[in-house]
Amino acid sequence: MKAKVYVSLKPGILDPQGKAIQHSVELLGFTGISDVRQGKYFEITLPDSADQEQARESVARMAREVLSNPIIEDYRVEIEG
Amino acid sequence: MKAKVYVSLKPGILDPQGKAIQHSVELLGFTGISDVRQGKYFEITLPDSADQEQARESVARMAREVLSNPIIEDYRVEIEG
Repeated sequence: MKAKVYVSLKPGILDPQGKAIQHSVELLGFTGISDVRQGKYFEITLPDSADQEQARESVARMAREVLSNPIIEDYRVEIEG
Repeated sequence: MKAKVYVSLKPGILDPQGKAIQHSVELLGFTGISDVRQGKYFEITLPDSADQEQARESVARMAREVLSNPIIEDYRVEIEG
């Protein structure tokens, strides 16, 4: 069973790394980009025997407590078969 | 229009950062985790007037040429309304 966790900065939090990427891609000739924001992505492999609801809860707790900073970041959890 | 780019290490490429995260969450009491891999996630905002097919092509080129290292990383592009 695979769990995917996406962590991104909350709206309104400045993202200098995203701005730097936007500036770079503009210099490289990509036009018409209004904004770039960078986040993190985690792929967590769990045993196939794990209970899906329990896995979702455990991974959400992990995302909240370890993988993200809830003051400035939002997270999203997806569980795949 | 929003484009999302997910960049992850190719299977088989060692991910010491993911291993460190796995070790940490195990120390914190999360059990039954077989593997953790870390990737990157980019949210790119494009003008709503942009053509969807053209946007997908442009963002895929950006993912290939700028946002990922195609030797060790895979990327996935999603376009949202």
